[in-house]
Amino acid sequence: MRVLVWGENHHEKYDARVQEIYPEGMHGTIARGLTERLGADATVETATLDEPEHGLSEERLARTDVLLWWGHLRHDAVDDAVVERVHRHVLAGMGLIVLHSGHFSKIFIRLMGTTCSLRWRQGDDRELVWTVAPTHPIAAGVPQPIVLAAQEMYGEHFDVPVPDDLVFVSGFSGGEVFRSGMTYSRGHGRIFYFSPGDQDYPVYHDAAIQLVLANAVRWAFQQRERVVPRIAMHRVNDFDTPREWDGSVLT
Amino acid sequence: MRVLVWGENHHEKYDARVQEIYPEGMHGTIARGLTERLGADATVETATLDEPEHGLSEERLARTDVLLWWGHLRHDAVDDAVVERVHRHVLAGMGLIVLHSGHFSKIFIRLMGTTCSLRWRQGDDRELVWTVAPTHPIAAGVPQPIVLAAQEMYGEHFDVPVPDDLVFVSGFSGGEVFRSGMTYSRGHGRIFYFSPGDQDYPVYHDAAIQLVLANAVRWAFQQRERVVPRIAMHRVNDFDTPREWDGSVLT
Amino acid sequence: MRVLVWGENHHEKYDARVQEIYPEGMHGTIARGLTERLGADATVETATLDEPEHGLSEERLARTDVLLWWGHLRHDAVDDAVVERVHRHVLAGMGLIVLHSGHFSKIFIRLMGTTCSLRWRQGDDRELVWTVAPTHPIAAGVPQPIVLAAQEMYGEHFDVPVPDDLVFVSGFSGGEVFRSGMTYSRGHGRIFYFSPGDQDYPVYHDAAIQLVLANAVRWAFQQRERVVPRIAMHRVNDFDTPREWDGSVLT
Amino acid sequence: MRVLVWGENHHEKYDARVQEIYPEGMHGTIARGLTERLGADATVETATLDEPEHGLSEERLARTDVLLWWGHLRHDAVDDAVVERVHRHVLAGMGLIVLHSGHFSKIFIRLMGTTCSLRWRQGDDRELVWTVAPTHPIAAGVPQPIVLAAQEMYGEHFDVPVPDDLVFVSGFSGGEVFRSGMTYSRGHGRIFYFSPGDQDYPVYHDAAIQLVLANAVRWAFQQRERVVPRIAMHRVNDFDTPREWDGSVLT
Repeated sequence: MRVLVWGENHHEKYDARVQEIYPEGMHGTIARGLTERLGADATVETATLDEPEHGLSEERLARTDVLLWWGHLRHDAVDDAVVERVHRHVLAGMGLIVLHSGHFSKIFIRLMGTTCSLRWRQGDDRELVWTVAPTHPIAAGVPQPIVLAAQEMYGEHFDVPVPDDLVFVSGFSGGEVFRSGMTYSRGHGRIFYFSPGDQDYPVYHDAAIQLVLANAVRWAFQQRERVVPRIAMHRVNDFDTPREWDGSVLT
Repeated sequence: MRVLVWGENHHEKYDARVQEIYPEGMHGTIARGLTERLGADATVETATLDEPEHGLSEERLARTDVLLWWGHLRHDAVDDAVVERVHRHVLAGMGLIVLHSGHFSKIFIRLMGTTCSLRWRQGDDRELVWTVAPTHPIAAGVPQPIVLAAQEMYGEHFDVPVPDDLVFVSGFSGGEVFRSGMTYSRGHGRIFYFSPGDQDYPVYHDAAIQLVLANAVRWAFQQRERVVPRIAMHRVNDFDTPREWDGSVLT
Repeated sequence: MRVLVWGENHHEKYDARVQEIYPEGMHGTIARGLTERLGADATVETATLDEPEHGLSEERLARTDVLLWWGHLRHDAVDDAVVERVHRHVLAGMGLIVLHSGHFSKIFIRLMGTTCSLRWRQGDDRELVWTVAPTHPIAAGVPQPIVLAAQEMYGEHFDVPVPDDLVFVSGFSGGEVFRSGMTYSRGHGRIFYFSPGDQDYPVYHDAAIQLVLANAVRWAFQQRERVVPRIAMHRVNDFDTPREWDGSVLT
Repeated sequence: MRVLVWGENHHEKYDARVQEIYPEGMHGTIARGLTERLGADATVETATLDEPEHGLSEERLARTDVLLWWGHLRHDAVDDAVVERVHRHVLAGMGLIVLHSGHFSKIFIRLMGTTCSLRWRQGDDRELVWTVAPTHPIAAGVPQPIVLAAQEMYGEHFDVPVPDDLVFVSGFSGGEVFRSGMTYSRGHGRIFYFSPGDQDYPVYHDAAIQLVLANAVRWAFQQRERVVPRIAMHRVNDFDTPREWDGSVLT
């Protein structure tokens, strides 16, 4: 499995508190956690906004099985051409794991078709992450509940489509609830949204959170020949080349 | 719409606190709330455990469009033959609304196929009922959130099948969460489970809760000729009498 | 209910066969069928591509409860600003019913986030439309199956998200199958995709098809104050103005 | 993975045509196909109706990770105590794959809560099995479509709950369609229903069908400590022993 962790890497440059929590960058901590848990099964790399093409060239995506995405303040700075490229690769089978404030990333909004808005509050809420789908591979071995001593609150209504699988629901000290772990399939790709992970808290150092992310990478991974759809007319075009089934085998 | 509210009516007989909260019986309060909100659109009656056949004769079910079910301590006292009868009518198109501790009723377990177990605690938790499906008819006009100052806590994991629609998710003071409003279709019948409503709290006097129940009755109601399936072999039998489609119209 | 039927109206201008089948235009026939079935419950109007703003001004959408969309050859000619406008209104609660080749319309692709591609063949296949969700309001009273003597074949895999409700599945003479009736919620809006309706066949004259469309209009309709989201940054913005719940009532 | 293939083994004893197609028994052919495809990853055994306890003792189920079930004429001969035992093990995490006419088995009806009835016809229909969920692990590598030259027809409406995942939809020569591959979770167990496999046709010799079954076994398998729920009162009892979460870690 070839895993790529994409980080906006903005807070880490300009915010002392975040630098202290994540001296290797949020993407760096996420990547290290995955490396430790996936071991020889995976190679884990990172990319950031300020790299050429945001570190997401066609070639790099072509050799990526699962992409993780953390962004927050600079969603607008992500080039539309790169967003379209990521979109095409997801539709062709690349796994995508969208983290926390990535709910407002261009790629997530494009895949969901909704506003992706939510309720939020910065107030050091305790977050409990409850498993509601105990048979789901992403929940395997995960404590019931995961306890995060302090986190930004994300609450309902979260304006996203009904998920394929609702895996986790979070409860916050203030009484709000949030569908915090949800899966989607789009085209040939598998997508997982996971909400814990504000930059102001050491969430990605948490062992249970790292386990969820490792489980999610294994789940989102598919051994599948990647046929990336073309862009034509106004749309990402059919990647099922033979549109008409050859019924001749039936005669 | 002909609505029937079934109440176990046990706490109301033996428990002074419940008598004080529900002098007309829990079923009585629920029925009155429905009558006020549904007006001329519905006739609302009640039935209780101690009546002959628990007030659920074949004839009575045959003229019931939507049945509400509240039970708690005496699930075992419900006759298996009556459970089977209710089951057949649900499969034939009668709506069923299962309330609170009715999660352990024979009819709900039979319809779900799981243990229907959950986490719980009596501790005067505040319950907030959040809408997560704002387009669902059962959520129409419902405040976001419904605030119940005190309630028994019901928490995940709730061992039921994945619902057709997840309408409400509750958060409790203790940090637990619960999928508190869920729809299911079984056969030709529509089912709604709604968890608020412990006997020790005046939940069914709450205007927002009454609105949810009235919405749920409207949603569960179907104008449909009732063909009640037979019982034969070990199973409730096919009610689609013509098993083979008459393809002759195609020639 | 204020219903608006949007038709591309291209085939009707240039194709004698279609003119013969639909002398009042496809949108005209669809609108007449709805008028007859919805009666006094609805006012039904039409709009077409060639009108200013394609007949879909902000004002007109603001007074539309349910929009039906038929397009085929000229998806690209639909102005992006109008697509965004329709998108915002759907998210705000306007119902949308997408018909047949509308699967490749800009608005549908934008709402789905996928390629929306499918298998197809023009070959006068008989199409049988089977109800798989007999409790769904859109299936109420619909024959099992609907028999369309000749239709264009649409087959799987249809690259759309998993629907909220799968209502109909079609089978074709050639052996292909298609999820032909599916519901989605996006934001506050309800969406129904229904595949029968190629321009070369008199599908919209069929009584059962007209019943499905009338049922779908009733289902997609919501009495809801329309708060249309703004466009800012790269996204359709939050229409839940108060993002933080006023917890003060909880003291 | 420890796999157990359960066969009714009735047709194989009394029906010359079936004996010819399945000289090693249907269960034998299914088991051999799994052994060949799962290789060292699995041990595959068989059990049949006529064995003591139908070959499904508590001890045997306790060491079974995934159970496959084929039955047809003698569903009634399966002891209720064994059905309850299988039910408890599924709820505790044992995978269950129900095949073809097993739709009317006691265990499937108990898990579904519906009639499980369907439309059918014996008429050598060609069956095409189409993948509608290309990202699902059970569909990995499966041809689009699977072509079965002759099969019994199973058609909609199939009276089962809405599945967690709809993986396959079949089309038949007669024009009927069927949701032929569906997943369910019940308790801690994963269930897959797969309809191809009438005794009169060599379906389980088909390479694509064998691939589906091998994929399904891998999917249904979970490494999970098996805590089998008790039977008490009228119900299969809570297997989440600690019903109240120990919130003390939060103070």
